[in-house]
Amino acid sequence: MEHKLWGGRFSAPTAAEMSLYNDSFRFDVRLAACDISGSIAWASALAEAGLITSDEQEQLVQGLELVRREFADGRFEAKPSDEDIHTAVERRLGELVGEVALKLHTGRSRNDQVATDMRLFAIGAARLIDERLMGLQVALLDQAERHTATVMPGYTHLQRAQPITFGHWCLAFVEMIERDRQRIADATARARTLPLGAGALAGNSLGVERERLTELLDEFDAVAGNSLDAVSDRDFVAELLFSFALTGIHLSRLAEDLVLYSSAEFGFVELADAYSTGSSLMPQKKNPDSMELLRGKSGRLIGNLVGLLTTLKGLPTTYNKDLQEDKEPFFDSLDTLDLGLRVAAAVVQTMEANPERMRAALDDAMLATDLADELVRLGVPFREAHAKAGRLVRRSIELGKPLRDLPLSEYQTVQANFDERVYAIFDFSRSVSRKESLGGTAPQRVAEQCARWRDLLTN
Amino acid sequence: MEHKLWGGRFSAPTAAEMSLYNDSFRFDVRLAACDISGSIAWASALAEAGLITSDEQEQLVQGLELVRREFADGRFEAKPSDEDIHTAVERRLGELVGEVALKLHTGRSRNDQVATDMRLFAIGAARLIDERLMGLQVALLDQAERHTATVMPGYTHLQRAQPITFGHWCLAFVEMIERDRQRIADATARARTLPLGAGALAGNSLGVERERLTELLDEFDAVAGNSLDAVSDRDFVAELLFSFALTGIHLSRLAEDLVLYSSAEFGFVELADAYSTGSSLMPQKKNPDSMELLRGKSGRLIGNLVGLLTTLKGLPTTYNKDLQEDKEPFFDSLDTLDLGLRVAAAVVQTMEANPERMRAALDDAMLATDLADELVRLGVPFREAHAKAGRLVRRSIELGKPLRDLPLSEYQTVQANFDERVYAIFDFSRSVSRKESLGGTAPQRVAEQCARWRDLLTN
Amino acid sequence: MEHKLWGGRFSAPTAAEMSLYNDSFRFDVRLAACDISGSIAWASALAEAGLITSDEQEQLVQGLELVRREFADGRFEAKPSDEDIHTAVERRLGELVGEVALKLHTGRSRNDQVATDMRLFAIGAARLIDERLMGLQVALLDQAERHTATVMPGYTHLQRAQPITFGHWCLAFVEMIERDRQRIADATARARTLPLGAGALAGNSLGVERERLTELLDEFDAVAGNSLDAVSDRDFVAELLFSFALTGIHLSRLAEDLVLYSSAEFGFVELADAYSTGSSLMPQKKNPDSMELLRGKSGRLIGNLVGLLTTLKGLPTTYNKDLQEDKEPFFDSLDTLDLGLRVAAAVVQTMEANPERMRAALDDAMLATDLADELVRLGVPFREAHAKAGRLVRRSIELGKPLRDLPLSEYQTVQANFDERVYAIFDFSRSVSRKESLGGTAPQRVAEQCARWRDLLTN
Amino acid sequence: MEHKLWGGRFSAPTAAEMSLYNDSFRFDVRLAACDISGSIAWASALAEAGLITSDEQEQLVQGLELVRREFADGRFEAKPSDEDIHTAVERRLGELVGEVALKLHTGRSRNDQVATDMRLFAIGAARLIDERLMGLQVALLDQAERHTATVMPGYTHLQRAQPITFGHWCLAFVEMIERDRQRIADATARARTLPLGAGALAGNSLGVERERLTELLDEFDAVAGNSLDAVSDRDFVAELLFSFALTGIHLSRLAEDLVLYSSAEFGFVELADAYSTGSSLMPQKKNPDSMELLRGKSGRLIGNLVGLLTTLKGLPTTYNKDLQEDKEPFFDSLDTLDLGLRVAAAVVQTMEANPERMRAALDDAMLATDLADELVRLGVPFREAHAKAGRLVRRSIELGKPLRDLPLSEYQTVQANFDERVYAIFDFSRSVSRKESLGGTAPQRVAEQCARWRDLLTN
Repeated sequence: MEHKLWGGRFSAPTAAEMSLYNDSFRFDVRLAACDISGSIAWASALAEAGLITSDEQEQLVQGLELVRREFADGRFEAKPSDEDIHTAVERRLGELVGEVALKLHTGRSRNDQVATDMRLFAIGAARLIDERLMGLQVALLDQAERHTATVMPGYTHLQRAQPITFGHWCLAFVEMIERDRQRIADATARARTLPLGAGALAGNSLGVERERLTELLDEFDAVAGNSLDAVSDRDFVAELLFSFALTGIHLSRLAEDLVLYSSAEFGFVELADAYSTGSSLMPQKKNPDSMELLRGKSGRLIGNLVGLLTTLKGLPTTYNKDLQEDKEPFFDSLDTLDLGLRVAAAVVQTMEANPERMRAALDDAMLATDLADELVRLGVPFREAHAKAGRLVRRSIELGKPLRDLPLSEYQTVQANFDERVYAIFDFSRSVSRKESLGGTAPQRVAEQCARWRDLLTN
Repeated sequence: MEHKLWGGRFSAPTAAEMSLYNDSFRFDVRLAACDISGSIAWASALAEAGLITSDEQEQLVQGLELVRREFADGRFEAKPSDEDIHTAVERRLGELVGEVALKLHTGRSRNDQVATDMRLFAIGAARLIDERLMGLQVALLDQAERHTATVMPGYTHLQRAQPITFGHWCLAFVEMIERDRQRIADATARARTLPLGAGALAGNSLGVERERLTELLDEFDAVAGNSLDAVSDRDFVAELLFSFALTGIHLSRLAEDLVLYSSAEFGFVELADAYSTGSSLMPQKKNPDSMELLRGKSGRLIGNLVGLLTTLKGLPTTYNKDLQEDKEPFFDSLDTLDLGLRVAAAVVQTMEANPERMRAALDDAMLATDLADELVRLGVPFREAHAKAGRLVRRSIELGKPLRDLPLSEYQTVQANFDERVYAIFDFSRSVSRKESLGGTAPQRVAEQCARWRDLLTN
Repeated sequence: MEHKLWGGRFSAPTAAEMSLYNDSFRFDVRLAACDISGSIAWASALAEAGLITSDEQEQLVQGLELVRREFADGRFEAKPSDEDIHTAVERRLGELVGEVALKLHTGRSRNDQVATDMRLFAIGAARLIDERLMGLQVALLDQAERHTATVMPGYTHLQRAQPITFGHWCLAFVEMIERDRQRIADATARARTLPLGAGALAGNSLGVERERLTELLDEFDAVAGNSLDAVSDRDFVAELLFSFALTGIHLSRLAEDLVLYSSAEFGFVELADAYSTGSSLMPQKKNPDSMELLRGKSGRLIGNLVGLLTTLKGLPTTYNKDLQEDKEPFFDSLDTLDLGLRVAAAVVQTMEANPERMRAALDDAMLATDLADELVRLGVPFREAHAKAGRLVRRSIELGKPLRDLPLSEYQTVQANFDERVYAIFDFSRSVSRKESLGGTAPQRVAEQCARWRDLLTN
Repeated sequence: MEHKLWGGRFSAPTAAEMSLYNDSFRFDVRLAACDISGSIAWASALAEAGLITSDEQEQLVQGLELVRREFADGRFEAKPSDEDIHTAVERRLGELVGEVALKLHTGRSRNDQVATDMRLFAIGAARLIDERLMGLQVALLDQAERHTATVMPGYTHLQRAQPITFGHWCLAFVEMIERDRQRIADATARARTLPLGAGALAGNSLGVERERLTELLDEFDAVAGNSLDAVSDRDFVAELLFSFALTGIHLSRLAEDLVLYSSAEFGFVELADAYSTGSSLMPQKKNPDSMELLRGKSGRLIGNLVGLLTTLKGLPTTYNKDLQEDKEPFFDSLDTLDLGLRVAAAVVQTMEANPERMRAALDDAMLATDLADELVRLGVPFREAHAKAGRLVRRSIELGKPLRDLPLSEYQTVQANFDERVYAIFDFSRSVSRKESLGGTAPQRVAEQCARWRDLLTN
């Protein structure tokens, strides 16, 4: 039982396999800095409540700073008895400052302590991911600015639909990521509620002032209002895991497009060699592994979310050990997304668009809607105009000729008052330029959006 | 192809099985009112852009209101050609107002239309769920107010831990639900971005003023900034499905506690007969089916979330038909949660707490922490105090006697200066009263929290 | 309480909302035929145990057959008191045969009854899906036989890799589906264990012979060995839901390929108009909606699986009402897969391959591995051969010339003893013909596999 | 590019972050032994095909065995260029045996290689888990044999239902685990299909005899029939992950029961101190952490399954890099289940049942079904008997008396011909003894089942 934070009541030691199963130090060591920050604040609160002297407080704080340094420098030596980060820190603190360490845990439980640590960690993690997301936005924006007027086929159902610009495509992802950032910000705001002082479950009876702790731990802006809830609330973890998973979905869509666009068949972009790999068998291969991994890893982000939700399902109130399962999925999703976003930004930054291939993939049928619009301008109700344009498309397929090569007589079959001016629509740049409502793909609109984003992302 | 919104280009009709697979009218009929509101706004925008006359606008609006009434009254008659709600409304509109109906879809695509409908629907759904959540909060608060000082065992790891009050237990769930409400509010705020006018993917070329549409559809407060994103953004659905799933987790925890507490072994509450059921075989059974279903249905809420996330994974940009799979899981989660919350509120409202059984379940060992606190007050460092109290617990187990029945000599074995005053801690009401830090279980704190919630929930 | 199968012990009626929440008739009505078959067997067992007379048995059986007919003909009239299919059948039976109906439930519980019904239903469902899977295999095989030697590009990482045949591509999916069929067969075998006679949880005390029931219900081949397990085992549902989900994944891959292959960029296949749809805005569009839905619905198949697993998680032993949540996901997955497979088979059956577009997409770099193999034949170790071929590919990119147009001198730069014979490798048909190991894409191998499958699927 | 298995075609090196993202050596090193076994078989096949000499084969095999030893002894030194286990082994082999190593990869791709490795690994993993499952069955059986006649309350809906025996409870889990074992065996059988020789995707053109490889690698019993499918089939991983997840669900139910049964309120079992832990705050606590972790970790097992299924969803045919995401979830689920099963077996083995507490929790109302059965024996139809027994239960609640203390007159109110003999049913041991149908809880049946399992598990 040596160095365990409990055990007085026990008559047999923990089995070796149980330690292996139960101990969390191998992963919760990542909480070291957060744990120490929480303990420093706690020591101050204990002193303010008169539970320790200010001299004792100082010893504790100095000792804790030494332990923090050991972790930071990679010098911390774990012992087998360190079942978790809290035990490890308190054990080491005792070695460094002696008996006063025995007072640190006064009125505190690992239940409120770990909840506090995890929140501090999550807030920091969210900040990191926000930076990474912004990094990807900037990379997309850089490309967008270069290509506000680069015309390419836009697809729905992966069928050529209407011409768009490549800059517009880039900005679609900037929008998605902006929502991700907002979502993470909202989740983080909810994480800033402090559980410390909730004790094991019932609250604190030693006069510790909880509101004061939110001043000492400035990541927090409120105190949890119910101790039973405080020690078992893992909503903030679930909410961040969800936000990360949805970001992962967005990245999977970016990846899918880039896998498609860098295929021989599309050829719209070429990924840098530095972010591609080859084949052990086929010498010609240049594979978009970076994007495939980005796409594939969305699975694990969803898996981590599902894992935690399932773990939480049906738990009785307050702390249950099942809650220890909040950490590994969170760490894994964080690391997956951190690196994934860095790679995604670099891939986007270094890829080369191929405007020639883009333009070559435009075909006249993509202007059928412009043709229908033209009919609308001639006074044909849209629904009829759509049908008439459809018949022209069918005719063009039957004759094996692009729309612009159909003789005027064909046009007049569907609409008698068509004249030569109809052929003016067969200009892809003109088509995109006319999509000039807000949010449309017209180069001037795309340029405005670029300017707006540049402003937002720079300040 | 009759009455299809497309087909000019097609040379063969849709296969029967394909219609069955593809058609969404059987479920997207729930969007009828939203679809019509969107179309009315669109008609105004078309008129303002000079694409239809104000007379035509009026005909369209009047016709649409007639269609709305038919749906509201259950008089709408679907036709086999109604592949989706949009087709159905436009077809019926044509029957009612004639040729002008052919102009309604000018410059619009079902892609931006359905995205708009779904947002309108989701905003309304979120409002409904918010009311239901508040209903459950009120039911919990009613119970809490009755039981601010009703002492019961608090559990961690389902082991008796420290005494708490039943009112405190009730308020723990009020807190969880409050977070759910905030989360849903945040998600809803993100849903208030208008896709209408984004066209199929590229934007609008007919001069429709999109900002104006947000005035006409007052649930929206901004225009989607990128048309490609606008037509395929289902983040708001995913985010609400997640929020609903996390609410479901909270409900599963409430249900688990109530299943436990209404068991013969705990006996802390009795559910009303009206929310219990019996057994077809065992005549004595009274089962908490309502709470078991509430717990079990958390699975389907998670399943619906996972389903949508998986569907979204790896889709190319803009609209793909896969997105049609956003609706059924959303409707199912909405209905599941709507009814589940009503039942939960009623169960909580009608259940009877049993203070005698609660008190009978308290045992002296639950005051071991108070004993340790007493030692802290005698100057013993907490960690040592914990060990000493633990030894007394072990002693009490060995002797088969409650702690209060151990002779003073036993107490003095662990701490020489213990005197008779130590026995004062064996008072459960005193124990809860001392948890008086903010968020603690002390009756005065619980009463304050009740007052705070009453205020919040009444105004 | 009227017509409830329980209630003697209750003093207040069920609340309306509780009925809405609790009642399962609206969906478990699908179990009607299974429920009746189980009851007929049970009546026989009761008679054999001497608990009813053979005359009573006959009345029950005749009455049950009448009820079955009512369901089959759509004439069954539900009453508000029919909380589930079991209650409904027993209530109606009473109306038809009078008091003897009160004896049917002797020694039986709805717990073992519904478990039996669900197994019978699942076994039938598995049989249906197996037929559908075979239907898709046949459609793929039909295409494969037509295209054993149709050369197309094979992809890895969606980059052109090596030439393959279209028949070989078709057979890849035949293999996947064959595994699905085996998996479903294994799951079904585990479903053939009979819970009937397990009572509510503890077993049967009235002398009913359970082994005899497996003879009366011939879908079963063994009796569940533990009554506690028997009434709450839903493994067979979970296992089938998983099998259906994995089938859904395979279908999503088929769909992804067909969406790609029917794009303008690939153009390898054209889907029939009957399985495609158009756009409400863009007249030229022909969209592969059938395949997108097939891909997207994999999400809901996974969601249903996750929902059930989550529901099962952490349940105490034996029956809990949460288990009622096994039905709707199962019915939904069954219907989703049933129709999806029919559509998939029809799409495959009716699509047209385009060998010209396939051949046009082959490029010389896809033969780089053949080039490396050639070097191996000249005695170069493979790893070096790979590097040499890679250098030639790079050279071909630099010079903007296909490999076959590089002069021999370039070839001799990497391998001095190359001579004119190297150019023989630039023959895509020759390349596929040489992949003649078992499982390879050589036409003769594909034809053999076709013959094997035709044999298997015909007999 | 040094030591990469590819690169001849590339003009820029891999970016550092890309290596971090792409490289799999840090986790696929676990495949080392499998990779080497596969390579040894491949070397033999190359020799048999005349592609290398038997002398070269011998050098390769000896070298590979040296590499295997280095891994086994923990002496293998990884280099930064070791992007995956295949590269690492081949690189090291080259250092040990020189140029001949360059021939090993002839006609092979990492695509078929890694698929082979993973299958070999999965087959071994399944074998390990099967042993662990059997270990838990034995622990449960040991308890069951001790308690074939120990009467305890059986629960449905967590309400006391009917008396059962503790041995019967133990055997319920033996049944569940037996299904898990069968399911894993079925999945493993499907894993025994060999992909080696499928090349990158198209098959093998160098005359390697694939059937021969199944003799060289005796875990396999067939050759994959389609090369495209062979390199991307991860069904076996998904199927094992599902089987592990369902096992996890069973363990979560075992854990839930033991958490309940070791609570103060139930008190049916006491877990060994060695598998319990204490509280850092509350000295009296003894928490069932082992069982809570077992319950909680079911979430991660489901999460890993969902992650892989999502990753697989929508992938184009043949190998895509996304498939690399099959490994970490599989390793994690394997390790989670391996240790979890060892802990579960030890917990079950070392826990102490408390027959006194079990018996004290039995109450007369649990015999209401016996009462109804008694009425059936008196000729009352069951449905009426149920209602009559229900009325007696309600009467006993109203009077606050156990059923056996109701006077005969009360019994005669519901059934005139009741006499004193009715009181004979109030004997819990008699009640369980009468559940003597197969699978019932009667001690003689439980003992028979124990004997059957002992026989099965010993042989």
